[in-house]
Amino acid sequence: MTAIISIGNEILLGRTLNSNLYYLADKLAGIGLPVDYAITIKDDPEEIKRALTHCWNSFDVVITTGGLGPTADDITKQCIAEFFGSSLVFDEEIWNYVVSLFSRRNMKAPEINRNQAMVPTNFKALSNKLGTAPGLFYEAEQKSFFALPGVPIEMKELFEDHMQSILVNKYHKETVLIRNIHTAGVSESALAELMRNLQPPEGLSLAWLPQTGRVDIRLYGTNQDQINYFETQLIELIGKHVWAFDAGSPACVLHEQLYNSGLKLAVAESCTGGLLSRLITDNSGCSDYFMGGVVSYHNDLKTRILGITEELLEEHGAVSEEVARAMLVGLFKLHRLDLGIAITGIAGPEGGSPDKPVGTVCFAYRCKGEVWSHKLILTGNREMIRIKAAEHALISMIQKLGSR
Amino acid sequence: MTAIISIGNEILLGRTLNSNLYYLADKLAGIGLPVDYAITIKDDPEEIKRALTHCWNSFDVVITTGGLGPTADDITKQCIAEFFGSSLVFDEEIWNYVVSLFSRRNMKAPEINRNQAMVPTNFKALSNKLGTAPGLFYEAEQKSFFALPGVPIEMKELFEDHMQSILVNKYHKETVLIRNIHTAGVSESALAELMRNLQPPEGLSLAWLPQTGRVDIRLYGTNQDQINYFETQLIELIGKHVWAFDAGSPACVLHEQLYNSGLKLAVAESCTGGLLSRLITDNSGCSDYFMGGVVSYHNDLKTRILGITEELLEEHGAVSEEVARAMLVGLFKLHRLDLGIAITGIAGPEGGSPDKPVGTVCFAYRCKGEVWSHKLILTGNREMIRIKAAEHALISMIQKLGSR
Repeated sequence: MTAIISIGNEILLGRTLNSNLYYLADKLAGIGLPVDYAITIKDDPEEIKRALTHCWNSFDVVITTGGLGPTADDITKQCIAEFFGSSLVFDEEIWNYVVSLFSRRNMKAPEINRNQAMVPTNFKALSNKLGTAPGLFYEAEQKSFFALPGVPIEMKELFEDHMQSILVNKYHKETVLIRNIHTAGVSESALAELMRNLQPPEGLSLAWLPQTGRVDIRLYGTNQDQINYFETQLIELIGKHVWAFDAGSPACVLHEQLYNSGLKLAVAESCTGGLLSRLITDNSGCSDYFMGGVVSYHNDLKTRILGITEELLEEHGAVSEEVARAMLVGLFKLHRLDLGIAITGIAGPEGGSPDKPVGTVCFAYRCKGEVWSHKLILTGNREMIRIKAAEHALISMIQKLGSR
Repeated sequence: MTAIISIGNEILLGRTLNSNLYYLADKLAGIGLPVDYAITIKDDPEEIKRALTHCWNSFDVVITTGGLGPTADDITKQCIAEFFGSSLVFDEEIWNYVVSLFSRRNMKAPEINRNQAMVPTNFKALSNKLGTAPGLFYEAEQKSFFALPGVPIEMKELFEDHMQSILVNKYHKETVLIRNIHTAGVSESALAELMRNLQPPEGLSLAWLPQTGRVDIRLYGTNQDQINYFETQLIELIGKHVWAFDAGSPACVLHEQLYNSGLKLAVAESCTGGLLSRLITDNSGCSDYFMGGVVSYHNDLKTRILGITEELLEEHGAVSEEVARAMLVGLFKLHRLDLGIAITGIAGPEGGSPDKPVGTVCFAYRCKGEVWSHKLILTGNREMIRIKAAEHALISMIQKLGSR
C-alpha cells in the first residue's frame, strides 16, 4: 500500500509534467509495491499536513517529492518535522558536504543553504550525490516515509542509491511480472467482446492500454505459470489481432527484424508526409537497412521522382491502390531494395469526396519479390489518421516478415 | 477552487505520464481557475467515491478524467451516477452517433458500447467528435462537475468544444491575458542573465517554458497595458533571440507565412529522416505550398535522386555544408521551387568522430534565389538533436521570410 505526495505549484499550474510520479510508480510496481494513491498539492503547510495525515494513516509506504530546496517556498521539511513530532537539528556532515559542492565551483556556500543541513530528529538523511538537498527517511514498524527532492535527476539518484534497497529489504515482496500483448486493427470494445467469457483469475490483473489505432493489453501478476496459462487462453480468442509481445513501437519491432538482416528498405509516402520515415529513423542504427524515402506530397513529385504517369493519376486518382503500387515500382527503380512501402491517402480535414472520404488510405508493399496492396478507411482527425496509416504500414510489414 | 481527479491504474503503475493534468492545469490557469488539488486513483469504486466526496465538498470545479470506455474496468460513470444520486438512462442520440462511428468503418457497433450511451439523470452529455465516450457535465449552484474520457486527444477536444465556454460563462472571472514570446538559439539561464535587472511588476507573472532547443516566455496578467509595457522592456534586452509571438510551433508559423503566398517549398533531409517533412505536413492545407521532399538517408539516394557526386561526398564527407548545398541544388532540379531546405548531420549516438562529433548538423537554404548555409553542433540525445535540427531549419526560414 503505497502513496505518493507531489508538492509543487508548477505541476498544478500546468508548467511541469509530473515525471517523478511516472518514474517512481514504474519502479515501485517493479519491486512489488505498486502505487495506490497519488496526490499533487501546493506548497502550502495546511495542504501538506492534510495530505500527510491521510496518507500516513492509510498507507504503508508514503513518499513526498518536492519542496526540499533552499528558497522560501520550500517548506516541506518543516511541515514533515511538525507532523512527525520531530525538531530540526543541524547536521555537520551534511553541511560540510554542501560546502564542498560549492567550493568545487569556487564558490562559498550561501547562508540560505544552511537549512538544507537541518535534519528532523528520528529521521535518517539520505545522501544526495547530485544536489544539495538530502533525502529523508523515517520508519515506524511496518511503515516507511521518504521525502525526496523534486528535481527529477536527484530524485532518481536517491531512489536508486537508497530507497530501493531499503524497501526491498524491509518488505521483500514478490516481484510483479508483466506481459504486454500488442494488438492492431481491432477496437478495444471488439477485443473485449471476443474475450467476454474469459476472466482473469485471482492474483492476475488485466489492463487495457489503447494507443492511436491499436490496443495493448497488459497482464500483471506474481506467478509466471498463471500468466502463461492465461495468455494461452487469450491468444486462442484474439491471436489473429496480435502483432507482438513485450515490444516497443511498431518501428522498434521492425528495427529488430531488419537490423543485421542484410535486407534493404525504402518508403514512398504521400499523406503521411515524412512520418513513416521519421518513425523508422527514430531507431539509432537504422542506416543498416533503411535507404531513405520520397515524400511525394505533390503529384508532380510522384511523376518526377517516382515516374508515375499523368494518365495513371488521372485514371485512378492519386489515392488508389494502382498509384500506390506504381509508387512502389518507382521506388525500386531508384535503388536495389528488398522491401518497400508506399502510402497515398487523404489525411483531411479537407480533400475528401463521397467516393473517397477523408481517411481513405491506400497501401502497397513489396517484401522479397512479393507485392500486395490494400485500402483502408481510417477514422479520427488529421494527426490520428496519419499515425494510424504509418503504423498500419509498419505492422503489415512486421507480420509479413514474421510469417516467413 | 478547482480539483482534478485522474482515474486510471496505468498512471499509478507508471505506464502513462499524466499529460491530461498538464494540459488541463495550463488551460484552467489561463481562464482564471487554477488547479488547487490533483489526485490520481485506481479504477476502484471506493476510491472514486472517496475522492468525489472530498473534492465535491471542498472545491467549486471538479473534473475527472478516465474510465469512460466501454470495458469492464471503466467504472467511472457508474460511480459518478451513484455519488450524485442519478440513475443511468439510455440516450438514443448518443447511441445513434456511436453506431454511425462504427458504420463508417463498415462495422456493427458492439453491444458492449451500449453503455457509452447511458447518461446519468440531471447530467448533460457533451458530444465527443473523436471517440465513442461523451463527456458528462453536472452543475449545482456555484459548483460544476465534469467527467472527461482519458484519451488525451478526446479530452482536449471536449475541453475546447464544451468545457472552456461553460466555465468562462459561469464564473466570468477576470480573463487572464497571456502573451507568449518565443525565443530560439539561447539557453534559459542565458536569457535570465540578460533579464536580471528586469522584474515583473505586481500583477504580472512571468513563466519560463523550456522546449527542446528553444525557450518560450509567457507573461500572465489582467492588464493589457501593463503587459505591453513590460514586453517592450523585455524585447530591448532579448529581442534578437525572439522569432515569434503567440505562435504555435515553428511549422505553424511557416505555414502562416507560406499559405496562399504562391511560393513553393521542398526539402531534402538526411539525419532528420522525415521529421522536417512531417512537421510541415502536420498542417492541413500545406499542399498549397509544400511539394514534398527526399529522405536521402543513405548516400546512394543522395546520388541517385539528388545527383550528389561521389567525389563531393568523398572530398567533404556527407555531413558538410558543401553536401547540404549540393542537396539543395539537386532538389531544385526536381521541380520549380521558390524555397528549399537541406539538412545533413549526425544524430547519434553512433557515427561521431573527433572532427565531426555527434550533433554536428549542416544546413543549406534557398529563399527566392538567395542561398545560405551554416553548421551547428547540437547537444542532447538522438531525439533531441533531430528535433532541434528540424526546428532550427524552420526558424531560419521563418526569420528570412519575415525580414524581407
